[in-house]
Amino acid sequence: MIAVLKSSATPQQVANLAEWFEKQGIRVNETKGEYCTVLGLIGDTTRVDMDLLQGLDIIESVTRISDPFKKANRKFHPEDTIVDIGGVKVGGGNFVVMAGPCSVESEEQIVETAKAVKAAGATLLRGGAFKPRTSPYDFQGLKEEGLKLLIKAREATGLPIVTEIMSEDQLPYFDDIDCLQVGARNMQNYELLKALGKIDKPILLKRGLSATMKELLMSAEYIMAEGNSNVILCERGIRTYETYTRNTFDLSAVPMLKELTHLPVVADPSHATGKASLIKPMSMAATVSGADGLEIEVHPCPSKALSDGAQSLTPEQFAGVMEAINKCRTVL
Amino acid sequence: MIAVLKSSATPQQVANLAEWFEKQGIRVNETKGEYCTVLGLIGDTTRVDMDLLQGLDIIESVTRISDPFKKANRKFHPEDTIVDIGGVKVGGGNFVVMAGPCSVESEEQIVETAKAVKAAGATLLRGGAFKPRTSPYDFQGLKEEGLKLLIKAREATGLPIVTEIMSEDQLPYFDDIDCLQVGARNMQNYELLKALGKIDKPILLKRGLSATMKELLMSAEYIMAEGNSNVILCERGIRTYETYTRNTFDLSAVPMLKELTHLPVVADPSHATGKASLIKPMSMAATVSGADGLEIEVHPCPSKALSDGAQSLTPEQFAGVMEAINKCRTVL
Amino acid sequence: MIAVLKSSATPQQVANLAEWFEKQGIRVNETKGEYCTVLGLIGDTTRVDMDLLQGLDIIESVTRISDPFKKANRKFHPEDTIVDIGGVKVGGGNFVVMAGPCSVESEEQIVETAKAVKAAGATLLRGGAFKPRTSPYDFQGLKEEGLKLLIKAREATGLPIVTEIMSEDQLPYFDDIDCLQVGARNMQNYELLKALGKIDKPILLKRGLSATMKELLMSAEYIMAEGNSNVILCERGIRTYETYTRNTFDLSAVPMLKELTHLPVVADPSHATGKASLIKPMSMAATVSGADGLEIEVHPCPSKALSDGAQSLTPEQFAGVMEAINKCRTVL
Amino acid sequence: MIAVLKSSATPQQVANLAEWFEKQGIRVNETKGEYCTVLGLIGDTTRVDMDLLQGLDIIESVTRISDPFKKANRKFHPEDTIVDIGGVKVGGGNFVVMAGPCSVESEEQIVETAKAVKAAGATLLRGGAFKPRTSPYDFQGLKEEGLKLLIKAREATGLPIVTEIMSEDQLPYFDDIDCLQVGARNMQNYELLKALGKIDKPILLKRGLSATMKELLMSAEYIMAEGNSNVILCERGIRTYETYTRNTFDLSAVPMLKELTHLPVVADPSHATGKASLIKPMSMAATVSGADGLEIEVHPCPSKALSDGAQSLTPEQFAGVMEAINKCRTVL
Repeated sequence: MIAVLKSSATPQQVANLAEWFEKQGIRVNETKGEYCTVLGLIGDTTRVDMDLLQGLDIIESVTRISDPFKKANRKFHPEDTIVDIGGVKVGGGNFVVMAGPCSVESEEQIVETAKAVKAAGATLLRGGAFKPRTSPYDFQGLKEEGLKLLIKAREATGLPIVTEIMSEDQLPYFDDIDCLQVGARNMQNYELLKALGKIDKPILLKRGLSATMKELLMSAEYIMAEGNSNVILCERGIRTYETYTRNTFDLSAVPMLKELTHLPVVADPSHATGKASLIKPMSMAATVSGADGLEIEVHPCPSKALSDGAQSLTPEQFAGVMEAINKCRTVL
Repeated sequence: MIAVLKSSATPQQVANLAEWFEKQGIRVNETKGEYCTVLGLIGDTTRVDMDLLQGLDIIESVTRISDPFKKANRKFHPEDTIVDIGGVKVGGGNFVVMAGPCSVESEEQIVETAKAVKAAGATLLRGGAFKPRTSPYDFQGLKEEGLKLLIKAREATGLPIVTEIMSEDQLPYFDDIDCLQVGARNMQNYELLKALGKIDKPILLKRGLSATMKELLMSAEYIMAEGNSNVILCERGIRTYETYTRNTFDLSAVPMLKELTHLPVVADPSHATGKASLIKPMSMAATVSGADGLEIEVHPCPSKALSDGAQSLTPEQFAGVMEAINKCRTVL
Repeated sequence: MIAVLKSSATPQQVANLAEWFEKQGIRVNETKGEYCTVLGLIGDTTRVDMDLLQGLDIIESVTRISDPFKKANRKFHPEDTIVDIGGVKVGGGNFVVMAGPCSVESEEQIVETAKAVKAAGATLLRGGAFKPRTSPYDFQGLKEEGLKLLIKAREATGLPIVTEIMSEDQLPYFDDIDCLQVGARNMQNYELLKALGKIDKPILLKRGLSATMKELLMSAEYIMAEGNSNVILCERGIRTYETYTRNTFDLSAVPMLKELTHLPVVADPSHATGKASLIKPMSMAATVSGADGLEIEVHPCPSKALSDGAQSLTPEQFAGVMEAINKCRTVL
Repeated sequence: MIAVLKSSATPQQVANLAEWFEKQGIRVNETKGEYCTVLGLIGDTTRVDMDLLQGLDIIESVTRISDPFKKANRKFHPEDTIVDIGGVKVGGGNFVVMAGPCSVESEEQIVETAKAVKAAGATLLRGGAFKPRTSPYDFQGLKEEGLKLLIKAREATGLPIVTEIMSEDQLPYFDDIDCLQVGARNMQNYELLKALGKIDKPILLKRGLSATMKELLMSAEYIMAEGNSNVILCERGIRTYETYTRNTFDLSAVPMLKELTHLPVVADPSHATGKASLIKPMSMAATVSGADGLEIEVHPCPSKALSDGAQSLTPEQFAGVMEAINKCRTVL
């Protein structure tokens, strides 16, 4: 960590500050310039509060040199973490495809879709029961009933389930669910993250709409700091000014995150692009970029879907995407 | 609402779609062009699911003409809403200043600050007890204890309290709090919003880091749809690529939101800019732009603050800002 | 095009407006709603000035249904355009790799790099002679001298040259250059675009730092409207709030642009990511996403490069990337 | 400047690098940490090429502590610069209002508007003769003829003229123009900036659509480095994801830039918001935030304007805005 002091800082003030750091086990190296003094702070600065420092009168700026996440950091944990979702492994060379409808709508719909995606090669079933929607007047999901239908689909196919939780109060309903998804809007819902850190189920943490990779990793750190290391990160598009696509798919985040962390990283081209025609090329791109898996929306009849229809594939289209993904896997 | 159909749509498909709309009480007007057919949809389209429509095979694009928020919409409720926070009115010409520290740290700190901001002219006390922090290793607030200290400060000064709630599970602690703040990171925590809609306390809803004004209004609609109309909106800076300021203060959002909604709109120059030196000019700017109030961070000794120090004012500086704000009020 | 009229518009005003449109050969279809009247405008609206319409008192909003670009539009020109750069074809299934240093520094450097990238499989040589730099104090390129060295490298290897032009005044120096690049900062330098439309050389048009795809296509339209159809588009990263990567590589823009336009679309992972370690995975990703080519920075010794060193590869690294790209090509 | 070295850097490599800096007159202070070594670089680092440094194998990251602009920097030139536009002073307490139509359309229009804005209190006339438009099919301005009409309007009113130049080739036409505007799209058209640095006319430099304040200041530095210090900066809205307003008015940039530079800073609420109804509140806000002036679009009959109609005021509305601005001036 580097602290730049204002030229107005007195030697006594600088000495006091240095002493305060040294009490925290942080070594201080001082460099005096014409217009400012620079303090190099050496040691474990993870717990130093940047805001507190920036608030000091004598400080001009503070810059972190090392990343503020520790448990998620590949520097301190070089090997890939492998997460087990109901027997299906993710990470460390294990590639998964989570497929299914945006929303669970009926037993027939979810069982039929589960069978179709399994036949095409998907290894996990995804589907929303609790649905975060921008408008209170839009369909909010079948809730507990939806979870029960997902379990029926698992019974019919053997595919473990990935589905979204929106509040720690819903945890009791998720006892028999294999992997809990935290949606983009809840990426910084810290009370939810802390509650998920206290269980040991796999958590699929989606990147917030305008979250930096560092913030995504800090949210993973919230879960891991409570004891749960079964965290999978998911790039699902960020918000920019571009309007042809629903979001901007920050695919570079996949290889970048793989450098920064040992956690598995998957990508969601359906939400990232919002366009059915882009899912195949972007699934292929995500695969060769090094993603540990993909989350793809599939609906038996996309034109009847109650939400996110524009970005869903038919089972036939999905089978074509799976074939392309499998070809791409041979390149690696 | 305007739906553009693909040129591949058959007359039968168009007729089916028109019938489906008409069953929902929506009148359809068809315009045929060379490359597409345009349907004008007339009536209450608030409950039409855009995503469902966009998912239909025959649809090229769908555009809303009228805004999707209803209860918050000034068109249907032209007069300003006035919200009462423990006897202090906001909106409809009533201007408030909410001041206090980012975090409650001790009884002495909060009572001293409350007295100082009251003396300078603040009408509400703000201070964080439950603190959302990006890092799990940063100070998370004094929690329940912090709420108790805020109540002591209210007893000492008479200033009603505004403080943040992070989860619906914390509601029992807020029984004696005057106004509940929803922070930027929780603006789309819908379970929290729905729970806040079921009480009748004033809610200060802060705009999310990358939320559009429409999304902010839809989140207000979530609270109002459950029955609570005491919602105050707050512009607190949005995320952009600029780094000299902590966020980008979207001050135009104040007069723009005042056109779109009847709810009071306040501004938070402290979080929006993150720089103490910008708070005075931007408080003045927000005042003349038509804001119904300001939220300003003040700390008895900013250099010791445990969070957000860089953007806090000393009581002396705050008194200077209040003087400037009051001058600006005379211009209106 | 859809124009929504305010409820205050009188029948006479609406009739006048309709007449004005019909004089321009545009058919008008009127739909009356409770709160507004909607005009559907059918015909060639490319030349209708949106700003003029939006300025009319009686207009609430105007929305384009069809895209405002015509010559670049795949709808009116379904087959892929193939551009010929000194005998090397781009587009319509012809894949190119443009490789070379960010800046031309010396004869030895550019000739050596040209030989190395040719040996690895590059088909075009890129290198900057005129360099746009954020700071006036940074190295601005070797200018005319740099162009001469590029030509020497072409003589030594046979690789056609792609290099940046910054002003229409520099055109005389580019007589013997194969392909002229317009940099991101000049994407809306309309005087330059118009001048390039009057020659018949291939133009590599890079997307602006915060340009939408529509704006990129409108800039291509500027060149094409003057008569030059040899335009290649390049996605090179857009500006967002993310800082781990230099820009955010909007790779979805590649398949999206390929839907919208018949022009070749290439990608530049070097500038898009700014990190040498991300170039291989993102080159592979761009290849399978359907790009017609790649632009990659290679430097004989990246640590001595006078600009953009962080994102340059050594010739050895580049050979590895070419091998990976070639494998990815077999998947398509 | 702070350079963080990788842990893999050998002592010999570090010594070589230190020697290289010292040859350039830069003092080096080394701090060794567990995971990295930090070099504090003291002295004039303006001319150190960040990109070159970042390209070195042994470097992990480089951070500038001091700003890279020098001539524009208030640290080295504490007093406000006052720019003289045809006898009208801007900066150092001198407040100006530049008003007029987006485009010059006819002699009657521009002379009538000039008289109206002068009567209301404007001190400079603005109007576009060379118009940058996103579409090649939109009105491109009256060009030389437009400049002649502006001069007629100046003759009729005495108001000095501010108008946009799009290319250095157009300079001969601007001999009799008082202040040359560089538009947002050309903020990094370095050939144009360098040409404008060689004349001594006042330059109104508008912030690019997604330019940081630092980049705006570096573009000013381009002009100043060539010898012309008569530069006025203009905040005119930046691009974000928000769509209710045309751009996002970054008003905090006004007081922030005033801290960073001695150059005058003006604001353009017309382009920043794109909505006539927001111009009055945002003009007032900009005035009290410390702007040295405003640029406002006024049109004798906005509904007939050939461009930017939605954001233009009638002369009557403008007179109301001037009155509000003047009241706001009394507060300062």
